[in-house]
Amino acid sequence: MGPGATPEAIERDAPTTPDALAELLGADLAAVDVIIHERLSSSVALIPDLAAYLIDAGGKRVRPMITLAAANALGGATNGTRMLAAAVEFIHTATLLHDDVVDESVLRRGKKSAHKIWGNAASVLVGDFLFARSFTLMVDAGDLAVLSVLADASSTIAEGEVLQLSSTNDASTSLDHYMRIISAKTAALFAAAARVGAMSTKCTPAEADAFEAYGKNLGLAFQLVDDALDYGGASAVMGKTAGDDFREGKITLPVILARETGDEEERAFWRRVMGGGEHRPADFEHAVAILRKRNAITRTIDFARVYANAARDALSAMPDTAWRNALVDLVDFVVDRAH
Amino acid sequence: MGPGATPEAIERDAPTTPDALAELLGADLAAVDVIIHERLSSSVALIPDLAAYLIDAGGKRVRPMITLAAANALGGATNGTRMLAAAVEFIHTATLLHDDVVDESVLRRGKKSAHKIWGNAASVLVGDFLFARSFTLMVDAGDLAVLSVLADASSTIAEGEVLQLSSTNDASTSLDHYMRIISAKTAALFAAAARVGAMSTKCTPAEADAFEAYGKNLGLAFQLVDDALDYGGASAVMGKTAGDDFREGKITLPVILARETGDEEERAFWRRVMGGGEHRPADFEHAVAILRKRNAITRTIDFARVYANAARDALSAMPDTAWRNALVDLVDFVVDRAH
Repeated sequence: MGPGATPEAIERDAPTTPDALAELLGADLAAVDVIIHERLSSSVALIPDLAAYLIDAGGKRVRPMITLAAANALGGATNGTRMLAAAVEFIHTATLLHDDVVDESVLRRGKKSAHKIWGNAASVLVGDFLFARSFTLMVDAGDLAVLSVLADASSTIAEGEVLQLSSTNDASTSLDHYMRIISAKTAALFAAAARVGAMSTKCTPAEADAFEAYGKNLGLAFQLVDDALDYGGASAVMGKTAGDDFREGKITLPVILARETGDEEERAFWRRVMGGGEHRPADFEHAVAILRKRNAITRTIDFARVYANAARDALSAMPDTAWRNALVDLVDFVVDRAH
Repeated sequence: MGPGATPEAIERDAPTTPDALAELLGADLAAVDVIIHERLSSSVALIPDLAAYLIDAGGKRVRPMITLAAANALGGATNGTRMLAAAVEFIHTATLLHDDVVDESVLRRGKKSAHKIWGNAASVLVGDFLFARSFTLMVDAGDLAVLSVLADASSTIAEGEVLQLSSTNDASTSLDHYMRIISAKTAALFAAAARVGAMSTKCTPAEADAFEAYGKNLGLAFQLVDDALDYGGASAVMGKTAGDDFREGKITLPVILARETGDEEERAFWRRVMGGGEHRPADFEHAVAILRKRNAITRTIDFARVYANAARDALSAMPDTAWRNALVDLVDFVVDRAH
């Protein structure tokens, strides 16, 4: 915890770094950070100020690490790989800025959200700037096939966000619909990050597919664990920012699973509290109690484990290198966050 | 005026089409419309619904027409040109959606703004989708150099919008600062639209530069006329949506010119009304009266004419074709809107 941070300012998924991978990637990761800060530059001071506030707030750089590690596992990251890793982080940061406007979030990475300091308008526009700059980075990396993967991922992310928005406060959201949302809004960028890392080397189509499958399944596991953590995860200790999804009426897997196996009284509760009306003081506590009674959080983490295993399996045919092993460790890190 | 349109629903710059150019471009323009609607498709119904609401609301397609005409003037539009024209319109539409959120606009193209119907969140996310799809279109057009031009234009637009945002309610905004804003937020996309149209043919670097200069100067003239129209333009009849800039505290050239030559009482008035405080009922009327007294609207249109002439001159060395002449006529159309 930094000197200025208050306990309220600790976000559930920010502090821990997947250290083994970060250490292996030391020089590459430092180079990506240099590229990121170079490409943030603008004569309009508000842009680097706002963007750096978020980018330097202690994000884990999971997505660019995946891009770099995939390339290294297949022969070595190039300068092109590093530019793509920066582009991936820019896309991610742009979506965070826009998400916080969409969700009216107060905190992000343990700090006050950018739009709470600079306003919604600035967050929307700086997000647009980062998104545009990500494409300039991709152009400089110089491969149209790679650009196509990241452009498609970007529109898929937007589709996932719109789908989630359309499903807000719909307590009857199905498991399939939820999986469709998180495949698009979260897993698509993980999948693209891994695929373009592989593509930045002279890899075979099968290798590119394997890394894409790794990223996609890791992304699904990551989102499922996030959704479990929003209700406290497997531990009895509630994270300081738990309850965001609940307050925003976002229907996630824990609620879907609990509702399926719940009784009529519980289903009425879910309809009321997820349906967009006023919340009563004890509602969140009661929600967590029902989720625990129905083992919904545990079962959500079990789902995450299934995808985590698929992510590991996707790399099983890859050469046995320190890079591959670090990527496998990253899967463990993602799932272990649940505890 | 369509059967359902009320007089209030007529926007100042929507109804007239630069007919000569549109007629010349008939088949190409129809093909671009087909591409636009194909690329809007998404299994998430809200996306094509919201995007088509705005795209089909009677925009003039000025930017894609410039792309198509530039290519035709240099030998012929290809399918790649048409995809780039659609990409340009997608970028423009994405910025409109985000602008309306930023400005809290109520009307756009004579209809209720999308964010007033579907909400800010949907407008932000569908804008992101269109922006991402524009890059997929550029990838399909297959030229990295062209992609680079449009990616740079996109980040420049965002910079211009942020710069404008930072200058809102700053009554001391200088002429230079204002020109910097409109060069970025408006002229950059006109310039890129023309340049990529040229680049989609086998043109020389000098030809690409000439079309870029055409687009840039046309864009500046376009924005200056728009800003004059927001205070009624050269005619005494006020457009139905005049006063947007005034209400939003956007400092535009008419106000800058009037303030420069105004007396102390007038400068105090501009500080009060543009500074973000409450407006009194007669403020807008009084503002227009001062602008007329100081010839500020006429002088703004004179500035537009200077840029319009530069746009015409930029094409003077181009082959004397119907396309070139139609592009020159487009310049007249843009300036004539002021009357």
